[in-house]
Amino acid sequence: MANTFGHLLRVTTWGESHGGGVGVVIDGCPPRLALTAADIQPELDRRRPGQSSIVTPRKESDQVEIMSGTFGGQTLGTPISMWVRNQDARPEAYEEMARKYRPSHADYTYEAKFGIRNWQGGGRTSARETVGRVAAGAVAKKLLRERYGVEVLAWVTQVQRIVARVEVETVTAQAVEANMVRCPDAAAAARMIRLIERVRKAGDTVGGVVMGVARGVPAGWGEPVFDRLEADLAKAMLSLPASKGFEVGSGFGGVLLTGREHNDAFRMRDGRVRTVTNRSGGIQGGISNGELIYFRVAFKPVATVMHEQETVDVTGRDTTLQGRGRHDPCVLPRAVPVVEAMTALVLADHAMRHQGQCGDGGLRVASSPVAQAIG
Amino acid sequence: MANTFGHLLRVTTWGESHGGGVGVVIDGCPPRLALTAADIQPELDRRRPGQSSIVTPRKESDQVEIMSGTFGGQTLGTPISMWVRNQDARPEAYEEMARKYRPSHADYTYEAKFGIRNWQGGGRTSARETVGRVAAGAVAKKLLRERYGVEVLAWVTQVQRIVARVEVETVTAQAVEANMVRCPDAAAAARMIRLIERVRKAGDTVGGVVMGVARGVPAGWGEPVFDRLEADLAKAMLSLPASKGFEVGSGFGGVLLTGREHNDAFRMRDGRVRTVTNRSGGIQGGISNGELIYFRVAFKPVATVMHEQETVDVTGRDTTLQGRGRHDPCVLPRAVPVVEAMTALVLADHAMRHQGQCGDGGLRVASSPVAQAIG
Amino acid sequence: MANTFGHLLRVTTWGESHGGGVGVVIDGCPPRLALTAADIQPELDRRRPGQSSIVTPRKESDQVEIMSGTFGGQTLGTPISMWVRNQDARPEAYEEMARKYRPSHADYTYEAKFGIRNWQGGGRTSARETVGRVAAGAVAKKLLRERYGVEVLAWVTQVQRIVARVEVETVTAQAVEANMVRCPDAAAAARMIRLIERVRKAGDTVGGVVMGVARGVPAGWGEPVFDRLEADLAKAMLSLPASKGFEVGSGFGGVLLTGREHNDAFRMRDGRVRTVTNRSGGIQGGISNGELIYFRVAFKPVATVMHEQETVDVTGRDTTLQGRGRHDPCVLPRAVPVVEAMTALVLADHAMRHQGQCGDGGLRVASSPVAQAIG
Amino acid sequence: MANTFGHLLRVTTWGESHGGGVGVVIDGCPPRLALTAADIQPELDRRRPGQSSIVTPRKESDQVEIMSGTFGGQTLGTPISMWVRNQDARPEAYEEMARKYRPSHADYTYEAKFGIRNWQGGGRTSARETVGRVAAGAVAKKLLRERYGVEVLAWVTQVQRIVARVEVETVTAQAVEANMVRCPDAAAAARMIRLIERVRKAGDTVGGVVMGVARGVPAGWGEPVFDRLEADLAKAMLSLPASKGFEVGSGFGGVLLTGREHNDAFRMRDGRVRTVTNRSGGIQGGISNGELIYFRVAFKPVATVMHEQETVDVTGRDTTLQGRGRHDPCVLPRAVPVVEAMTALVLADHAMRHQGQCGDGGLRVASSPVAQAIG
Repeated sequence: MANTFGHLLRVTTWGESHGGGVGVVIDGCPPRLALTAADIQPELDRRRPGQSSIVTPRKESDQVEIMSGTFGGQTLGTPISMWVRNQDARPEAYEEMARKYRPSHADYTYEAKFGIRNWQGGGRTSARETVGRVAAGAVAKKLLRERYGVEVLAWVTQVQRIVARVEVETVTAQAVEANMVRCPDAAAAARMIRLIERVRKAGDTVGGVVMGVARGVPAGWGEPVFDRLEADLAKAMLSLPASKGFEVGSGFGGVLLTGREHNDAFRMRDGRVRTVTNRSGGIQGGISNGELIYFRVAFKPVATVMHEQETVDVTGRDTTLQGRGRHDPCVLPRAVPVVEAMTALVLADHAMRHQGQCGDGGLRVASSPVAQAIG
Repeated sequence: MANTFGHLLRVTTWGESHGGGVGVVIDGCPPRLALTAADIQPELDRRRPGQSSIVTPRKESDQVEIMSGTFGGQTLGTPISMWVRNQDARPEAYEEMARKYRPSHADYTYEAKFGIRNWQGGGRTSARETVGRVAAGAVAKKLLRERYGVEVLAWVTQVQRIVARVEVETVTAQAVEANMVRCPDAAAAARMIRLIERVRKAGDTVGGVVMGVARGVPAGWGEPVFDRLEADLAKAMLSLPASKGFEVGSGFGGVLLTGREHNDAFRMRDGRVRTVTNRSGGIQGGISNGELIYFRVAFKPVATVMHEQETVDVTGRDTTLQGRGRHDPCVLPRAVPVVEAMTALVLADHAMRHQGQCGDGGLRVASSPVAQAIG
Repeated sequence: MANTFGHLLRVTTWGESHGGGVGVVIDGCPPRLALTAADIQPELDRRRPGQSSIVTPRKESDQVEIMSGTFGGQTLGTPISMWVRNQDARPEAYEEMARKYRPSHADYTYEAKFGIRNWQGGGRTSARETVGRVAAGAVAKKLLRERYGVEVLAWVTQVQRIVARVEVETVTAQAVEANMVRCPDAAAAARMIRLIERVRKAGDTVGGVVMGVARGVPAGWGEPVFDRLEADLAKAMLSLPASKGFEVGSGFGGVLLTGREHNDAFRMRDGRVRTVTNRSGGIQGGISNGELIYFRVAFKPVATVMHEQETVDVTGRDTTLQGRGRHDPCVLPRAVPVVEAMTALVLADHAMRHQGQCGDGGLRVASSPVAQAIG
Repeated sequence: MANTFGHLLRVTTWGESHGGGVGVVIDGCPPRLALTAADIQPELDRRRPGQSSIVTPRKESDQVEIMSGTFGGQTLGTPISMWVRNQDARPEAYEEMARKYRPSHADYTYEAKFGIRNWQGGGRTSARETVGRVAAGAVAKKLLRERYGVEVLAWVTQVQRIVARVEVETVTAQAVEANMVRCPDAAAAARMIRLIERVRKAGDTVGGVVMGVARGVPAGWGEPVFDRLEADLAKAMLSLPASKGFEVGSGFGGVLLTGREHNDAFRMRDGRVRTVTNRSGGIQGGISNGELIYFRVAFKPVATVMHEQETVDVTGRDTTLQGRGRHDPCVLPRAVPVVEAMTALVLADHAMRHQGQCGDGGLRVASSPVAQAIG
């Protein structure tokens, strides 16, 4: 098990789907950031079950409690512990899972690894674990916004075959929140919602793609060669339940271009070094170049379907399992705040690491004229 | 900078394109593994420039020296230090780069981050840094093969629009090495080679996709929630120069299926729990399930093209830069051993971590019948 | 801030003296260890304020809650989150400290570092933080005992000038707990108690030395060169509030001997390699040698005294501060379970790390005859 | 094995006594620090064997080569790889050690841990490993001096029973280097040298104590609760070969005082918050308070003595071993630069970590008046 993420800004999540609750400890948060539960709760509400007709009806208010790390409404620089109680647990709904492995879930692999598992709601494998990530991400988002002028945003860009058209440079958080599927292309959103409602009725599920962006990141964040900015983003995204792929900038589509077509020319604009195109996705050589950072994350269709499926039981016999209970027909709308949270955690950690090695303290580097221009 | 990778098996790479050389220190390698330079050199030869007519003609013999960590031909459990000298350095070929940023290279971002850069051959941003990864990966590959019965293999599955057809379960290392583009589909390989030769003549470049697999990984490797096996693979791959995307199992294509279509049913086969299909890519909930692990990595077209391109200079003026010198028209053939190396490093580290938490020592878990069956 | 300790068995503590509570998350605990609150509470009771007439009268029942990581009374291998509420908080007793720095406390350094501090009870600098360490240490102690046959024990060996005589090889936990100062030399204990009562009445405080031992550690634990077993123990002990020194084996006294006098001869005994003397303290070259591990930790006198002392206030003016309120006249009796906890955490982590690199899995090393004999 | 130390400034050492050489990779060094081999060599010369009549006569010139990480005489921010060749290796002198374990050496524990060891000169357990530490420490010392105005200094304060009297606030590096035992009390030094020469002739060895100080450290460095400044110093010192104890400030002697006697009163002096006494050793609550940091490290007598000793052989039989060959009669004079190196590495790492969490970048905290006064 490895439940800590980050190098200077470190988050440790804990908790199972059924049990006392789920939570997170943030270590290394800079001091004197204004912070109360009111900064956290809205993000948790975006992740919360029962928020709309296209997500799971499990009833969890997910009210966050800040247990430590703040004083007089400000961060202390000490560990921030936050948690929410589990309320609407129904262990009895999972009794069959005590003996049978759900297909394409992690029941079997946890059993193989640990020789024991909490089968109630999937235990630690439940997406409920992401509560801690979202709570921590809310802190990182605020830190990035207030201290660095960086905005992080994500949205649903594809559900199964329905692909949205979105202006990545200018789309707003308001536009994302304008509908319950969190796709800022209203027409596509309407079709996505209809699709999700249709598959729900059919007892089936669908997947899709989330787009994530960061605006205002200065040139210089990222720690090659192993902790390249895109490498840490890739890890963050592939650590999410149900994610199957990550691409930054031109991504898989970029392989169809030649080098002449793909390269991003440099030009001076407003006294800064800018790229004319942005196939690099705002990152070159693992370090931000001052352009918009953007990437896409693929999520598979939810594994819980309301049909009988073939599986094996814990005694090693072939059997079948009938899906039932509360579930998301599509994880995408609730994945949006989680993608934002992980993006913010990666960026805030890198901001601090850059500051640690190359920062202002006694260490400000005398820069070349261009570097000075970009500040 | 972050030049160490891994948790129990840790590699630290060092070196610039032009300078004394490039190398690696492996820390944590298990003791008593038979190891000499002869185990390392063949992998370096696969990565070496000048190996064929479709890669850069830079002349580097890349002869590895093992400086520490072995005794009587066996590993000691102490750090293994390996390095190769730089021989065919031509700093004068890069003098223009001292003043101009190459488009879609990391010249500008290194300058912005550090206020200084080694412009000779790109310095640390050169893919020459991967020499250390491949040397370390050769050790990890041997460790996996001899101690765990795990085989790691990669190949070129796509160059621009040319897509190979390969039987992932059975393709052999010999088939991969049968041609200089390292694509085991002979017909596709021939077309890929013609394409690369054509773009080279045109002073242009192309990208593509590498497929990586691991066979024989037992159920149970992987450390959720953050160090999921696919998350660490994603980070490893996105830490490679020129990589732009990663997908595991069904990947981005999987979002077109519904949950019913996508799920991998479990069945008993030969006394083991197996999946009927393998859209999970051998990993469920971040932990290996005993099936074939497979993933794809996208590499962009090489940024160095033999044409004049727009850029800026270090004084902040718009200018142009004419590409010249030695370069790869396509990074894919040489990327194959690097993908294998990183895959092996991730898997060997996870094997050791699993052993540390759940291993045999005093800690063997009494397993359920199914877990026992899979041993 | 760095609130995580350990490499494979990682603990993260959180919480301030006054606030919601204090707690800990244990990550990496092996699965299937029987564990309930009843395993934790006795250790917390040994650390608890108000337990006797020679410790602080602050009233905290310190009832632990396990929030995650167990199922059916066994560990899952997932993060174990535990916490206790703060009950007897009296923030008003500290209002003067909001404006004045207590001498030899951390008020000033926290202010200098963070520009903010929780002055209520010292906030994060309170020894109340060690609640999380003791709870985690209780798990590590049980793991060591049940899986490795290792016993960890500590006791008070010196209070100011009163030095106990204790047979380190055979002293029992029962003897340690036989009196409220936790010194197994009954005569010395009686004098220590009288001394502590006398200084308490005088409004003063005293320090002392805790001895820690580990029995049954097999040869082979420890990770040179930086994570030597004694190095990690030294760090663990110097991370405790009020500790000022650490010595292992012969320690500072060993410098008075010559090499001939100091060396530990090897002899075979009962088919095992043993040392005739044990000035090495059970560790040679950073690795356990199978003998008793023992070390001593110095704790300074508690900084809170019931007298007026010179200090400065937050506006930078000289002033005085009159000590008042509840305090320990001597930290030693309550430090004993904390020293045991940190010792157990270090050893359990090293057991797992050794297992990860050199363990049984596919990796058992063929040993020389002697190595085989010691198993 | 764990051969990496540090969090933002990370050093990885490698190499055995006999083999290609010994070296180090420094990762995370800030860019644009002027650095050439001339900055490193003087420190290695202080550690070098054969430097005087009271150290081992092994002939090693220990000429350092910088292999990477600098350009035009400045650091790049990329990994700095440095190494020295082994020259005067005499493996034949150690053949008896292939079969017999030297008492109070690490031969046996390495065999028990790894099932294999390089018996030539002790392999990795040789103090020759500290070459890499000293080379890295030279970089850290320069960084501290030039970027932070911090000076690190150590000296021999005790050899067996001979104790020096030194003014810790004002003693200079020149005074330390004024004699070959590196004790700035000339009279004591003369006696120490005579003692060491006497024990050498007797085929015996002696130990002693090194004092380390850091001047100019600002208030605010240190990362409680686990990475307290004194905790990381303790770990660094106990990771050194032959070290047995560490104490900071009043240390073990401090337990003899009462709280009233021990406390360091605060007073304003020259507009800064100062302590009147310094029993805290410049660290309070794990964070520097702006006063002189000082600590003591105990080193045992060297284990290699020129006499017959009892031991066992690798087949598990009792036997004797006659010490012979080249050795140090006292490790203290050569330990001084190693203590300085580790001190510098700890402090530089903490400077960077503090900067990362609380630094100037966008993160400068608005300070209370006192905090502002101390800058």
